[in-house]
Amino acid sequence: MKIKIYFFGKKNEILDWEKEYLRRIGFRCKCELIPLAQAGITEGVKAKKIEADNFLNKISDQDFLIAFDENGIEKDSMDFSKWIKETLENRGEVIFIMGGAHGLHRSILDRVNLKLRFGKMVWTRNLFRLMALEQIYRALEIAGGSNFHKE
Amino acid sequence: MKIKIYFFGKKNEILDWEKEYLRRIGFRCKCELIPLAQAGITEGVKAKKIEADNFLNKISDQDFLIAFDENGIEKDSMDFSKWIKETLENRGEVIFIMGGAHGLHRSILDRVNLKLRFGKMVWTRNLFRLMALEQIYRALEIAGGSNFHKE
Repeated sequence: MKIKIYFFGKKNEILDWEKEYLRRIGFRCKCELIPLAQAGITEGVKAKKIEADNFLNKISDQDFLIAFDENGIEKDSMDFSKWIKETLENRGEVIFIMGGAHGLHRSILDRVNLKLRFGKMVWTRNLFRLMALEQIYRALEIAGGSNFHKE
Repeated sequence: MKIKIYFFGKKNEILDWEKEYLRRIGFRCKCELIPLAQAGITEGVKAKKIEADNFLNKISDQDFLIAFDENGIEKDSMDFSKWIKETLENRGEVIFIMGGAHGLHRSILDRVNLKLRFGKMVWTRNLFRLMALEQIYRALEIAGGSNFHKE
């Protein structure tokens, strides 16, 4: 079982706090946080298209892909845990993608198997990565029967 | 105008990242992150009551108090910005309180003027403080007309 999390940014943006979550998640499931090159242009739509093509080339049609998106559905921590456990068991691997400064291109949003969001608010990118890692860690702890999560 | 954010924990838990948000928020509005002593007992309900009494003694009946609570309402970043701007203008000060490991005692939840939440998920305390600071920073930047926030 494996979780891949793609983000638009550089490897050196990954914080020690994130590395600590990756280490802890690693006791339950392989998990990789993978940077994607950002298009070196400021024009939003064109940049999103180049970035999207680059990402979509990395994955196959069979991959189970989840986008973090402002129009996604919301799950509570228990539901998210149940869902990720079942999905990992059924699919073996899940891939998350989070948007860059310009959001995700339509070609990615059209491709994904599921869109998820954490509430209505907009979050800054670095903080959002940490939030996603925390929820994935929490989800696997719940599924693994630890007492980390208190309702 | 002033924002006070109370949390159950110790001053040395406050991260550099949080201090950076406090510094940036400080350009728009006075903002304090205030630790509250945690009851040194493990029995949840009793601890919550002691902690709640201690906190409620610090504030007056006139204070405008917002709790972060899982049963709170949700606002998007634009609405939160509009709301915090108006509330600061009308009331001069807003006070936020976030729960400890056991959540908030009923006496606090009964006292508050508003309950807010960031989505359905449960968040770890340190990360939640950072999330609250990020949204307050974002809200004041939106209200101040900066281009930090991109819809």
